[in-house]
Amino acid sequence: MKKYVEKNDLIVLIDSNFKKYIVDITSKTDKIKGVGVLDPISLIGKEFGKQIEIGNKQFWILLPSVQDKLQNVHRRAQIILSRDAAHIIINCSIESGQYVLEAGIGSGSLTIALASAVAPGGKIISYDVRNDFIEYALKNIKKASLEQYVITKLKDITKEIEEKDLDAIILDIPNPWEAIENAWNALKIGGYLCSYSPLISQVEKTVKELRKHNFIEIKTFENIQRELVVSSHGTRPSFDMLGHTGYLTFARKILQS
Amino acid sequence: MKKYVEKNDLIVLIDSNFKKYIVDITSKTDKIKGVGVLDPISLIGKEFGKQIEIGNKQFWILLPSVQDKLQNVHRRAQIILSRDAAHIIINCSIESGQYVLEAGIGSGSLTIALASAVAPGGKIISYDVRNDFIEYALKNIKKASLEQYVITKLKDITKEIEEKDLDAIILDIPNPWEAIENAWNALKIGGYLCSYSPLISQVEKTVKELRKHNFIEIKTFENIQRELVVSSHGTRPSFDMLGHTGYLTFARKILQS
Amino acid sequence: MKKYVEKNDLIVLIDSNFKKYIVDITSKTDKIKGVGVLDPISLIGKEFGKQIEIGNKQFWILLPSVQDKLQNVHRRAQIILSRDAAHIIINCSIESGQYVLEAGIGSGSLTIALASAVAPGGKIISYDVRNDFIEYALKNIKKASLEQYVITKLKDITKEIEEKDLDAIILDIPNPWEAIENAWNALKIGGYLCSYSPLISQVEKTVKELRKHNFIEIKTFENIQRELVVSSHGTRPSFDMLGHTGYLTFARKILQS
Amino acid sequence: MKKYVEKNDLIVLIDSNFKKYIVDITSKTDKIKGVGVLDPISLIGKEFGKQIEIGNKQFWILLPSVQDKLQNVHRRAQIILSRDAAHIIINCSIESGQYVLEAGIGSGSLTIALASAVAPGGKIISYDVRNDFIEYALKNIKKASLEQYVITKLKDITKEIEEKDLDAIILDIPNPWEAIENAWNALKIGGYLCSYSPLISQVEKTVKELRKHNFIEIKTFENIQRELVVSSHGTRPSFDMLGHTGYLTFARKILQS
Repeated sequence: MKKYVEKNDLIVLIDSNFKKYIVDITSKTDKIKGVGVLDPISLIGKEFGKQIEIGNKQFWILLPSVQDKLQNVHRRAQIILSRDAAHIIINCSIESGQYVLEAGIGSGSLTIALASAVAPGGKIISYDVRNDFIEYALKNIKKASLEQYVITKLKDITKEIEEKDLDAIILDIPNPWEAIENAWNALKIGGYLCSYSPLISQVEKTVKELRKHNFIEIKTFENIQRELVVSSHGTRPSFDMLGHTGYLTFARKILQS
Repeated sequence: MKKYVEKNDLIVLIDSNFKKYIVDITSKTDKIKGVGVLDPISLIGKEFGKQIEIGNKQFWILLPSVQDKLQNVHRRAQIILSRDAAHIIINCSIESGQYVLEAGIGSGSLTIALASAVAPGGKIISYDVRNDFIEYALKNIKKASLEQYVITKLKDITKEIEEKDLDAIILDIPNPWEAIENAWNALKIGGYLCSYSPLISQVEKTVKELRKHNFIEIKTFENIQRELVVSSHGTRPSFDMLGHTGYLTFARKILQS
Repeated sequence: MKKYVEKNDLIVLIDSNFKKYIVDITSKTDKIKGVGVLDPISLIGKEFGKQIEIGNKQFWILLPSVQDKLQNVHRRAQIILSRDAAHIIINCSIESGQYVLEAGIGSGSLTIALASAVAPGGKIISYDVRNDFIEYALKNIKKASLEQYVITKLKDITKEIEEKDLDAIILDIPNPWEAIENAWNALKIGGYLCSYSPLISQVEKTVKELRKHNFIEIKTFENIQRELVVSSHGTRPSFDMLGHTGYLTFARKILQS
Repeated sequence: MKKYVEKNDLIVLIDSNFKKYIVDITSKTDKIKGVGVLDPISLIGKEFGKQIEIGNKQFWILLPSVQDKLQNVHRRAQIILSRDAAHIIINCSIESGQYVLEAGIGSGSLTIALASAVAPGGKIISYDVRNDFIEYALKNIKKASLEQYVITKLKDITKEIEEKDLDAIILDIPNPWEAIENAWNALKIGGYLCSYSPLISQVEKTVKELRKHNFIEIKTFENIQRELVVSSHGTRPSFDMLGHTGYLTFARKILQS
C-alpha cells in the first residue's frame, strides 16, 4: 500500500462537504474553485488518508476511486447518474475485457463508469455527432485517467456502426429507435442493448422497434433512490429526492425469435 | 466469435419465459426441472442464438452472461438482488483487480456479482459462520464458473478479519455494527465499506458505530425499482412491485476525521 | 352513544384478520363466507366493541364506518382504491351538500366514498352505459346504506350530460378525453374535473383535450402508498406493495383563459 | 349559481401561476404581495370565472374551494399537506356531523381540511400547548371562514382529554405515544386514532403503546406523490419530488382484544 503522495500520482482532494477535486501531480498549477491556485508538487510526501490545509480549507488526500472520478465530472448537460450507470453495467453484464459501444458521449460520465468496468482488457467506443461534445467529454475522461480505454468517433449511430460482435451497446440519444437495426447488426449473439430515455414516448417507440427485431428479454424500468437520514433526533427518509432520471430499456440479441 | 457449442463450453439455455439453466458441456447428464434429463454432449454443434427443442420445450442457447449466472442461482434464503449488487459495486468503486471481502456468503449471489467485477485480476474473500452455507453457495459459484475468484473462510467477521489493505468490505450479516472496528482495520486507506440491512434499527446501530471511527461519506439509501409495461393497449407502471429489499449504508476509511 | 345492537341497526362484523361483513339487522338470514348462515336477529342486544363467536370464529361488532363500507364492497372489475378516492375528494374540494357526477359507476366503490363525502345535503349522480354494472354497484351501495345519496342513470357521458352547475365531475372511463367538452359545459364555474386512468396515453389525450378548453390548474399525479411494518424484530417498509393504481388528472373550470 | 361578486362574499383571486389570495369583500383594504393594496369593494360586480387586472397582474376570481383555503394558509412550521390530510380523513372515516379532536393545531392547515369534512353538523376540537400557535392558526382558519366549526383549547393532550365519545382523534405532536391512553378513553367505540410523525422512532413507540391498549387495525404507511409532466415534447415523471412528509399510523378503538 502506498502511504505517501509521489510525483506521478493521480490523487483526489476531498473537502468537508465531500466535494472532490482530482489532481494530477505531474500537471502544472491547478485552480480549485473557492480555494485558489494549487501547485501539485507541494502535495508530494503528504500522507494518504490525512487532512491537509489549502487556502484555509481542510482536504483529505486519497487515491481516486471510480466514484471520485464520476463525482469530479464537469457537466454540460444532464448526465447519466452513477445509480443508472450501475444498473446499465449489471443488466448488460458488462465485465473486464469487453468491447462496449455508447452513443452519445454526453459529458463523459457514463463513459467513465463503463471504462472502469471494462478495464484493463476492454474498450469503450463512443460515438457522438458533435465534436465539441467529444472534446468536452474527453477532458473529463482524461482527468479520470481513463483515456486509454476510450475510443471516440465523430459518427451518427443511426447511420452506421462500424464495429462488429460488440458485447453491449448503450444508447443515450434522443431517437434511440432509429439505432435499433444498426445495433442488432453490430452486437454479438447474446449481446445486450440498453437505451436510456427520460420520456415515455421514447420508450414506447424503442420497445416497438426492438420487438420487430430478434431481441429477447426486452424490459423497461426506472430506479428511484431514496436516502435515509440517520440523525440524533431520529431516522427518516430524506425530504430531498430526485423524482425521475430516465427509463432504462434492456434487450438481448438472438438469431431467431 | 464462437458460432457453435463446443465440448468444453459453459452454456445457458433460456426458455420462452426467460428462465435460465446453465449447463457445463463437460458435465454428466443434468436434470432440467419440468423438462427432464439432458445429456450435455447432445448440445455440441448447436448454433448460439438459435432455439433448440428439449422435451417439447424451446430453448435459446447462449454463452452465459453475468446476469444469466445471477438468475441461475438457487436460493436458500433471501438474496441480495442484482439491482442492489449493482449499487454496491458502483458505490464501493469495485473494479477488476481488487480484493474485496464479504460476510456472510448467503446463497452466493452477491459473491457471483462481485467476483465478476474483480475478475480477472482480483479476488473475493467470503466469510461465513456456517459451513453448510459456504457449501451451498460454492455450488452456485461453481455453476457460474467463478470459483477461481473466490476464497471462502469459515470465520466470524465480528471476531477477526485476517486480511489487510482490502479495497472494500461488504457486510450482509444481522449485526453489522459489531464488525465495524474490524472492518476499519482491514480496509486500505480510502477503501469502502457497505452494509446491507433490511431493518431500520440495523442501519441506526451501524451508522452510529461508523461515526465513532474514522469514516467519511457515510450515507444510507434504498433503491426502488419500478417496471414500465409497454403493451399494445398502452404504457403504465407495473402493478407488481417489490416494496423493499434492504438499506445500503456506505462509508469510506480515512485516517483522521 | 349506542351501547348495544338494536333491531334497525346496520352493523359490521370484523374477524381477526380484519375482514369485514356488513349486516343489516332488519334483513333475513345472511351467509358469511367460510362461517355459514347468520340470523341477524340473534345479534340484537350484543355489545358494540366486544367480540362474539359465530361458527367457531370471533368477530368484533361495530357500527360501520365509511372504511368498513368501502372494504365490504364486492368487486367485479378493478376498483378505485380508497387512497385514490381520498385524493379525488380533497383535490376536487368535495364537501357535504355538493352535487357530483361520476362516470362510470364500476362496482360502486368510488360512489360510496363520494356519497359519504357529500352526505347529508348532497347527491352523487352516477352514469354508466351498462345496466348490469349499475345494478351490481347499487347492491354494494345499498349494503352501505347510502342509496339515498345516489342517482344512477343509464347514460353515456361522452354523448350528453343532463345536469348543470355541478360541483365536480369524476371520470373513470376508458376514453375520458371524449367527455371533456360535455364536462366543461356541465360544471359550475370553479368546479373540478378529475379523470382516473391507468394508462399514460389516456392521460396524454385527456390533458391535451383539457388544454383546448377553459380549464386551469391542470395537473396529473399518482399516489404510491408504502406500508411500514413495525414488529418486535425491527421496523422496515413492507415487501408487499402495489406498484401502480392509476393516474389522477385534475382541472378546474374557468370562463376565460 | 352566483354569477357576480356581491358585497358579503368570500372570494379567491388566482394568479397565472395559480397562487391564491382569499379575500373577504366585507373587509378593509388588503395587501397582495407583489401587487399592492387592494380595496375589496372594487371587486363587487366582477364576473366569477373571468380574469381581472390588479396592479398589472391578471387574476381569476372564483368562490373559494377547500383547496383554495388550504393553499392560502400561511405557514409557520411544516404543515400536514393536503395529500396526507386526505388519507387521514378517509382512513379515519371522517364525515359531516362528526366530532374530531386534533392536537396540536400547527398552522391550522389540517384543521381547515378536517373542519370542511365535518361541516356543517360537526366540530373540530383543537388542542395546543402554545397560545401563540392557536392564535396564528385561528387567523388562517378565519381567513378560510371555517371558525364556526373549530373549538380551540390551550391544553396538553398528553395530560387530559375533556371530551368523550369522539369520532376520531388526530395526533400531530412530537410525543404521540404519551397521548394514547387518553385517546383510547376519549374515543367512541369503533372510533379512529391517527398519528402523524416524520420519524421512525416516533412510529415505533406509538405502535408499541397502541398494542398495549384495545385497538385493532393498527397500520402505518406513508404516501408518496409523483407528478406526471405532460408537455409537447413528451410525458415523464416530474424531476421535482418531495421524498418524505410523514408516516401515518392508524388504529381503531374496541373494548376487548
